[in-house]
Amino acid sequence: IDLHLNARVVEAGYGYLIVEENGKERRYDWDRLVLATGASPLIPRIDGVGLENIFTVDLPPDAERIIKAKGENIVIVGSGYVGLEMAEALSSRKVTVIEMLSHPLPNFDADVADVVRKEVEKKVNLRLNERVEAFEGEDRVEKVVTDKGEYEADFVILAVGVKPNIELAKQLRVRLGETGAIEVDKHMTTNIDEIFAAGDCAETINIVTGKKAWIPLAPVANKMGYVAGVNVCGGSIEFPGAIGAQITKFHDMEIGKVGLSEAEARKEGFNVESVMIKTRSRAHYYGEGELWLKMVVDENKRLLGVQAVGDAAFPRLYAAAIAIQHGLTTKDIFFSDLPYAPPFSPVWDALVVAARKLRF
Amino acid sequence: IDLHLNARVVEAGYGYLIVEENGKERRYDWDRLVLATGASPLIPRIDGVGLENIFTVDLPPDAERIIKAKGENIVIVGSGYVGLEMAEALSSRKVTVIEMLSHPLPNFDADVADVVRKEVEKKVNLRLNERVEAFEGEDRVEKVVTDKGEYEADFVILAVGVKPNIELAKQLRVRLGETGAIEVDKHMTTNIDEIFAAGDCAETINIVTGKKAWIPLAPVANKMGYVAGVNVCGGSIEFPGAIGAQITKFHDMEIGKVGLSEAEARKEGFNVESVMIKTRSRAHYYGEGELWLKMVVDENKRLLGVQAVGDAAFPRLYAAAIAIQHGLTTKDIFFSDLPYAPPFSPVWDALVVAARKLRF
Repeated sequence: IDLHLNARVVEAGYGYLIVEENGKERRYDWDRLVLATGASPLIPRIDGVGLENIFTVDLPPDAERIIKAKGENIVIVGSGYVGLEMAEALSSRKVTVIEMLSHPLPNFDADVADVVRKEVEKKVNLRLNERVEAFEGEDRVEKVVTDKGEYEADFVILAVGVKPNIELAKQLRVRLGETGAIEVDKHMTTNIDEIFAAGDCAETINIVTGKKAWIPLAPVANKMGYVAGVNVCGGSIEFPGAIGAQITKFHDMEIGKVGLSEAEARKEGFNVESVMIKTRSRAHYYGEGELWLKMVVDENKRLLGVQAVGDAAFPRLYAAAIAIQHGLTTKDIFFSDLPYAPPFSPVWDALVVAARKLRF
Repeated sequence: IDLHLNARVVEAGYGYLIVEENGKERRYDWDRLVLATGASPLIPRIDGVGLENIFTVDLPPDAERIIKAKGENIVIVGSGYVGLEMAEALSSRKVTVIEMLSHPLPNFDADVADVVRKEVEKKVNLRLNERVEAFEGEDRVEKVVTDKGEYEADFVILAVGVKPNIELAKQLRVRLGETGAIEVDKHMTTNIDEIFAAGDCAETINIVTGKKAWIPLAPVANKMGYVAGVNVCGGSIEFPGAIGAQITKFHDMEIGKVGLSEAEARKEGFNVESVMIKTRSRAHYYGEGELWLKMVVDENKRLLGVQAVGDAAFPRLYAAAIAIQHGLTTKDIFFSDLPYAPPFSPVWDALVVAARKLRF
């Protein structure tokens, strides 16, 4: 592979690219093209958002800038994964997180997110139902003004979501989907046969709903790239889609979601049942691990989603991901033969208990 | 439920039981009976096995006896789960483990067990390919004699396997299966319609092979009990069988197996392919976690078994258990959307890498 780093595509046309490279513009011709332009942080249109020391979190240089930034008072805008992970990373300082919704982790159900809220509030000044109206300061940001108050800020981190990078796709007249990302089929081919797209710039299918979805997460992106790579070289494999599996942690609390939340499932028109349980994460004589798990099913008891929060949420989410992707039911889960030993789980695992409560 | 503790069934006949209770024998009649008599440790026929301070590990009082036992020199016979767990628990003392096979964990493949061997040998005097010939001592055991040497022993733990408790079943003329445990159908009914059996005393089906198997492990036993309980009360649910999912740990090393080992799969006549990989268990900037994972598939790339050893083997085994029980293939695994974040895994999970290496 002829790899060009520090090379920026400034113009894309059918059969060619113009690339700015070492200060010069060069032209490269292509027979087939893969767009893998990724996604970028959203910058909200708020007064003063251009002030110095207002950061986004995208690539390693962003981390370096944030590490070097001085000051005790930090405001983070947004309480999704990125917002909470930054709050954790900076928790030795005075962190305020401002979230315009009524709970952290906007794509989680409120009851699950409420467990996370309690943990976050132990370490961070979490402001819910609050909206940033302006950033103020001379050159640097000094203050964040919301609809409910003002917060001193030595620096600010914007963590309000991402958008697909579709400028080159537009230049090439590649079709975008309803989600705003590039529309592709299962081969990662766009509406133009010779142009493929993969990763965070492209759409995929949500296997649970069967509908087009934009799921800008790393494992999905990597596999889309694998499929595009095979197919652009003349192979033929299909990407089946994804379920939106995701995990993070806040200090000792593991936090994750696979498939749909109950709110998402209702919005999609599913006839939903759900249960939320709190269990031990391991045998009682192996410590005080607590685990909250919410399971969402449709009227046929097919799993639509699992959210889990607490100690050892990760293994439960790993198993649930496979179950959801393959359309398993509460009966399948109840009768799953999961490896058990007291340091790892109680003999009735949280997944099994949730499945039993939902009946089969 | 009318629960009788400290009550021992001394005779079982069709329609009645004779029970020794508070020093008296009483008769109870039954219309339906559930045998849930469990399993007991095997006692090998070795000279001197009846000496004091030779323990087995079964119920909580055994643990109390072992905790009270004095002495620095401990010999453990057998290096299966129980042997290794006892070696861990006693690792502040001088522990010798004697195993007659060429690797620890007899039901694992040799290549996987070899990774465990190296870890065990850091803490314990592990003697492989060695057979105990006698226990010697006055009243208490003092010495263990093998075909290769002698070991001083203040106490000995026998961990050479278990056998189903089938004495009452025999009295009742309940049919035993080829495995030696009680034969049951999916309703947990024995050959006698009114008698059910469940748990470690009963057989089940190995879902991977489709054959009868004896799998004396807690989650299987508990679910068999659930099924027997529903059916004995007039309900009708079926137990689908199990895959032999199991996990243990030795200090920081997680050790587990779901489905068949390669050796087991070959013995069952499968046309086997396998791969063993060593990967990081999480992103490189989150520590040095190492994970070994072996995946065994048939000629259709259907998963037959996964063995995993190292840091965070547990979540991989949880996901693999669901995959194996439901007949998934390497392609299914490769395209599994597993939740990812750097503290939990590399972006290409060990399961995904193994599936890719086996092709699809």
